[in-house]
Amino acid sequence: MSAMPFEVTLREVGPRDGLQAEDPVSVAARVALIDALSYTGVPTIEAVSFVSEKAVPSMAGAAAVMAGITRAPTVKYVALVPNLRGAHAALEANVDGLTVTMSASETYSQKNTKRSIAESLVAVEEIVGFVDDRVPVDVVISCCFRSPYEGDIAPEAIGALVRDAWDTGATAVTLADTTGMATPRRIDDVLDETGHDVGLHLHETRGTALVNAYAALQRGVKRFDTSIGGLGGSPFADGASGNLATEDFVHVLDDMGVRTGVSLDALLAVTGLLVATIGHPVASNVGRAGPRSRLAG
Amino acid sequence: MSAMPFEVTLREVGPRDGLQAEDPVSVAARVALIDALSYTGVPTIEAVSFVSEKAVPSMAGAAAVMAGITRAPTVKYVALVPNLRGAHAALEANVDGLTVTMSASETYSQKNTKRSIAESLVAVEEIVGFVDDRVPVDVVISCCFRSPYEGDIAPEAIGALVRDAWDTGATAVTLADTTGMATPRRIDDVLDETGHDVGLHLHETRGTALVNAYAALQRGVKRFDTSIGGLGGSPFADGASGNLATEDFVHVLDDMGVRTGVSLDALLAVTGLLVATIGHPVASNVGRAGPRSRLAG
Repeated sequence: MSAMPFEVTLREVGPRDGLQAEDPVSVAARVALIDALSYTGVPTIEAVSFVSEKAVPSMAGAAAVMAGITRAPTVKYVALVPNLRGAHAALEANVDGLTVTMSASETYSQKNTKRSIAESLVAVEEIVGFVDDRVPVDVVISCCFRSPYEGDIAPEAIGALVRDAWDTGATAVTLADTTGMATPRRIDDVLDETGHDVGLHLHETRGTALVNAYAALQRGVKRFDTSIGGLGGSPFADGASGNLATEDFVHVLDDMGVRTGVSLDALLAVTGLLVATIGHPVASNVGRAGPRSRLAG
Repeated sequence: MSAMPFEVTLREVGPRDGLQAEDPVSVAARVALIDALSYTGVPTIEAVSFVSEKAVPSMAGAAAVMAGITRAPTVKYVALVPNLRGAHAALEANVDGLTVTMSASETYSQKNTKRSIAESLVAVEEIVGFVDDRVPVDVVISCCFRSPYEGDIAPEAIGALVRDAWDTGATAVTLADTTGMATPRRIDDVLDETGHDVGLHLHETRGTALVNAYAALQRGVKRFDTSIGGLGGSPFADGASGNLATEDFVHVLDDMGVRTGVSLDALLAVTGLLVATIGHPVASNVGRAGPRSRLAG
């Protein structure tokens, strides 16, 4: 409890991790969403992904999105890149930072990138070398809290992989619960090995994102990825959450007096825009029910 | 953290608080649901409510449900009663315990029962006196963590009300977050005043039920109401949760090594039956996504 931070830093991943899972929306709509998010107080927005437009049509036009947005001076606009080619394109588009992904699960890594974990580390190192401190690079490691293929991965192995990720020269490392298999106990076990200077990227697949974030806060973790509306894809019905919803997390952090710099009211206005953009309801509970501060007529 | 209990006791409220919010289903279907729950290991099932059949048609036929179920010797079957008349009917139906409700919110109390808080306490006392130790009586106090009418209620006032509830001679007191306004901080603040010998009845309206339960566990709370499928009504879309879902909570408790006596596999089988009974998907995340133990083909 004593480790509970006074302040946490959110990275809003809705325009990337969120919209990636949706039917493609126009570049103009993506620009409008990012611009609206720029007014909420979020310090960092993962705005785009420089991936194959054929493989991920919903993320096509990343350079056009970056060129179209109105940059707020207080916001960092970062891009996910899968490889050196993506990193080139992202720097050309003048992004403020990169996220690079790899996996703690060998099978997940092979299935998603046709690379082993060891090969991914080399690829990360190449990207970090190419970037050469021009912008920060955050290595996001998937499946840190269990893999749908291998099951639980030893916390010690996650700890070693995080050290390897730091050794690439990366600016930051983020642990992702890609398939929503983390629990407070697994969060504790993994943080025992990695220390609390990591980001967390949590999914709601099994309803545990908020409780996992809370457990991590109690361990002193200060960086979290969240997604407006809880967007982020789910094989289940509308309303099944993807990422930890920005609104839901800010709602609880506000109540705990943990500073985010984010305005919940502004966020909820963006949730409205988001629903219009994607054409279906969002999964975030506070987005649907409103904040606890809203009393009956 | 040190207060984390080794064991918690769940009261399954799906057949009552859950089905109450649904279109009425047949007595036979309610009996089948309760009988299926009897095999999951839950120690207590809130099976019925002896309320006005006109006011709450989904709860009509409480005596027929109680007469129809096959009682497992390990399970207590309890009924919610709103008044002395309900208590009479419940004891005639041979229930193993009663839940009696009142509110910490004056306006909520007036709107729902046309009684003040003080009048409710007198009514509870009458019921407890009538029951005279034949079965346990649990006083469930609504709006303990905020009211949609008055806003936050001082934790000291909740503490005083809990003492008043004990003073009626009741066997147990449960704090309800009726409209899903609790947060970990409010849980802490209220438990500071009430002590941890209370039950908690948590709602998912703002996605906080599990994190609130976790915060309460860390304070040593050992009794929780949960609802199969997260059933429990919500003014929002399908998939918006009502009560803390039994599956979601057991899933996390199992992982923490906190004993419930409940089999998650058995619960998930009942979730399937429930979906067929109510004719729409349930809100529980683990009910939809399956447990973390389930690996990819």
